[in-house]
Amino acid sequence: MNAFRSISPSEFFYQHRDLAGFSNPSRSIYSALRELVENSLDAADGFGIKPQVFVKIEQVSGQIYEIHVRDNGTGIPPEHVPKALGKIFYGTKFSLKQSRGTFGMGATMAVLYAQLTTNTPVRIYTSVDGLTFYYYEMMINIEKNEPIVMRRSTGPANGWKGVSIRLRLLGDYDRAKQKILEYIRELAIATPYADILLFTPDGEAYAYKSIIDELPKPPSVSKLHPYGVDYEAVRRLILNWNKGNMVKFLTKSFQRVGRTTAIKFLEYAGIDQAKNPKKLSMEEVKLLVEKLNTYQEFLKPDPRSISPIGERALLEGVKREFRPDFTCAISRKPSSYLGYPFLVEAVVAYGGEIKGFTLIRFANKIPLLYDEKSDVSWKVITEDIDLSRYRLSLDMPIAVVVHVASTKVPFKTLGKEFIADVPEVEREVKLALQKCFRDLQLYLGKQFKQQRLKERENVYRRYLPLIARFAAGMAGEKVPDVSRLVGEAYEEEQRSQ
Amino acid sequence: MNAFRSISPSEFFYQHRDLAGFSNPSRSIYSALRELVENSLDAADGFGIKPQVFVKIEQVSGQIYEIHVRDNGTGIPPEHVPKALGKIFYGTKFSLKQSRGTFGMGATMAVLYAQLTTNTPVRIYTSVDGLTFYYYEMMINIEKNEPIVMRRSTGPANGWKGVSIRLRLLGDYDRAKQKILEYIRELAIATPYADILLFTPDGEAYAYKSIIDELPKPPSVSKLHPYGVDYEAVRRLILNWNKGNMVKFLTKSFQRVGRTTAIKFLEYAGIDQAKNPKKLSMEEVKLLVEKLNTYQEFLKPDPRSISPIGERALLEGVKREFRPDFTCAISRKPSSYLGYPFLVEAVVAYGGEIKGFTLIRFANKIPLLYDEKSDVSWKVITEDIDLSRYRLSLDMPIAVVVHVASTKVPFKTLGKEFIADVPEVEREVKLALQKCFRDLQLYLGKQFKQQRLKERENVYRRYLPLIARFAAGMAGEKVPDVSRLVGEAYEEEQRSQ
Repeated sequence: MNAFRSISPSEFFYQHRDLAGFSNPSRSIYSALRELVENSLDAADGFGIKPQVFVKIEQVSGQIYEIHVRDNGTGIPPEHVPKALGKIFYGTKFSLKQSRGTFGMGATMAVLYAQLTTNTPVRIYTSVDGLTFYYYEMMINIEKNEPIVMRRSTGPANGWKGVSIRLRLLGDYDRAKQKILEYIRELAIATPYADILLFTPDGEAYAYKSIIDELPKPPSVSKLHPYGVDYEAVRRLILNWNKGNMVKFLTKSFQRVGRTTAIKFLEYAGIDQAKNPKKLSMEEVKLLVEKLNTYQEFLKPDPRSISPIGERALLEGVKREFRPDFTCAISRKPSSYLGYPFLVEAVVAYGGEIKGFTLIRFANKIPLLYDEKSDVSWKVITEDIDLSRYRLSLDMPIAVVVHVASTKVPFKTLGKEFIADVPEVEREVKLALQKCFRDLQLYLGKQFKQQRLKERENVYRRYLPLIARFAAGMAGEKVPDVSRLVGEAYEEEQRSQ
Repeated sequence: MNAFRSISPSEFFYQHRDLAGFSNPSRSIYSALRELVENSLDAADGFGIKPQVFVKIEQVSGQIYEIHVRDNGTGIPPEHVPKALGKIFYGTKFSLKQSRGTFGMGATMAVLYAQLTTNTPVRIYTSVDGLTFYYYEMMINIEKNEPIVMRRSTGPANGWKGVSIRLRLLGDYDRAKQKILEYIRELAIATPYADILLFTPDGEAYAYKSIIDELPKPPSVSKLHPYGVDYEAVRRLILNWNKGNMVKFLTKSFQRVGRTTAIKFLEYAGIDQAKNPKKLSMEEVKLLVEKLNTYQEFLKPDPRSISPIGERALLEGVKREFRPDFTCAISRKPSSYLGYPFLVEAVVAYGGEIKGFTLIRFANKIPLLYDEKSDVSWKVITEDIDLSRYRLSLDMPIAVVVHVASTKVPFKTLGKEFIADVPEVEREVKLALQKCFRDLQLYLGKQFKQQRLKERENVYRRYLPLIARFAAGMAGEKVPDVSRLVGEAYEEEQRSQ
């Protein structure tokens, strides 16, 4: 018989840190960096602040590196700092709101990993008001899933608001370098309104200045949509319900349910409108949940909680990066899966500095660099769409950029490597790419035609004088001037296309 | 500013149940079933008991199904039942021991999902001694991550030991059917010594009787290997250390470290042999961890904690399933990654009832059916190995079976869908398959040659009499009997090959 025991969330993720993207020194330095940077961006543009993010990686000795990330976001209220960085399952990201952070554990995992590999505390400065900064040095009690504050102090912030974090960890920067540079590069495409500055251990500096000023509308917290609701959710809503009948309960508890919809639904479900939700029997609750999931007349989830990158912004980012000859940008209308709204944006670019077929994936504005072949976009490109129908192939200099924004991105892993092939998402990606591939086909077709016509013109230009001379010689006439005819023949052919 | 809050592990996995394989009704009925079945098998063959597992899926109404799984394993001690099934991060699988269960949360996730979708409790009978059974009806308090026992009773077990669980959940059996049947079919290949009986909602019964009697050696709990050790692990070892010097500490705490190795290592690390580990300074602990990770002379991890399926058992399973014309089975020697021992077994089969190229993947004796293209074995077959070099292709009727056994299988997801491409594992899979592909190439080469010779013989058989007749006519002689010559020409050609 094996021994039964209980372990803390920290202990679980200590044992399985590879699940969260901390599988080896190369991968871990990348994961730590991205988790911190993504928190920084969320803390800025998530609240309408134009992000300025400073990132520095320094080599301490051998494979020990220090990562320093500083932002100009909202900061962390000092009383929350220890738990926000020292307790798994403690944070702000457990609500229906679009953010880069999805599972609310990335920064704590980075602190945990640093501690495991270098036995050093995280050091953090933060200010929420620009007046006072708070400084903490802390580690994690893994068995208890609790922070251990080792030092704290305070001082004047001199106008700075934000968070500044330093972590010392075992990393393989040489192997991670390409991924880290690629990550920052793609991040700049997705957030062209941010200033991002990166200093690398080999003394290089990468500066991405913002190229547009307009910030996207910050996402908002949304209510539950009736579709996909479960017993636990309904139980909680009823428990927290103050007073009012079923109609009021439905309109207040769910998005997209107005008075008329609520009344119609209750008729469909056979539940009394006047009933107080708290007085529903077990059987009635069961009925309610079942009917909420099967009623076909609810409006689609509210897309206002979605914050896209925006066609223009995405396009600017792609142009800065590739200077392509052709671009097509598309923003699909919001759609939904299981009660979660989502939206797909895509850019297809051709030529310029694009080297071979390149897929760039974003989810809630963060680049996804690992496990490309497991991603829904790769599936769409290689399985759902027949590229040859568009006279395209994976050998051409095509860049495909796909962004999926949602209050809940269907990641399959805690490490946020790739998006699952949820049918609704797959369909939207497919429709977006088909549109752009069609445009690219037309563009390349025209290019090809122009090219062919030019070649044809050359043929006329070369042979028409010869024919003229030959004919003139035969007829014993003077050789006519054919230069005007070359242009006419060319135009004639163009008209006939 | 967003609100900070703490959530329980149950709450986290309630919000992200898709991470654990409970993403939709079709996938969820499959996941619930497999988690229960895998626990049943662990509770039997993990303790030297020949497994007998009974599985029944019944349609209650519409998409509501009841899953019933009963085994003859060791049972759950009654005092542990509520938490074992009603508390995330409570269980027996948080140790360095090979088992089908990896994360210790599968059954609780199934109970949680059942509750969310049908609001019904799990019902469980168990007996550990064959004398008394204990019965529980229970649900989960998700916010608190605690079990809620609703009913319990007890009675005579009449000799039965084991666990019997019933869950009622929302499922899409029609869509899951193929995966469930495939799962049980492959499970029978990996555990040919088990009796597995499945009753489906459409009234079908699938019985897999054991075809071999011999059980594999049960896995054992192993100590940590020095390679891959971190500060937390060393801190705990020191904390729990009673008395004795560094030499004793090392030999008792780690696998594969004898007295001689310990002394040599301490010299290398520059740490005093006579020192009491509890008296190490922070600096010395740091040195100890660093040196444990970099010392090259430690023996490889102990493979005795690994329990393979066994070449013969795997082969029998494949033969029962496919009745192939050719098989090659190989068991690689144990190897290790990051301090964890692992072992790769493989079978390659050809012809018989195999329809097209088929990859069957096992990890610690469980079939992996999802995300095939993300799996290390798929990568080896399609990227690392050039099949055409073996005159093989993905269009041929080839079945490739790969089993990876380890005290820690490098899964990338909690849903145990696929094995990560850890370089050490990738290498072992590659070597195993190369060997078998070479054998298959030889076999097919011979087949081809036989075929060609047969065709050649037919040619002789047809033309030799004609030549004889023609020659005889020319010479005016009687036509000779050439039937003996056909055989001789054929044998001659065979000798010359």
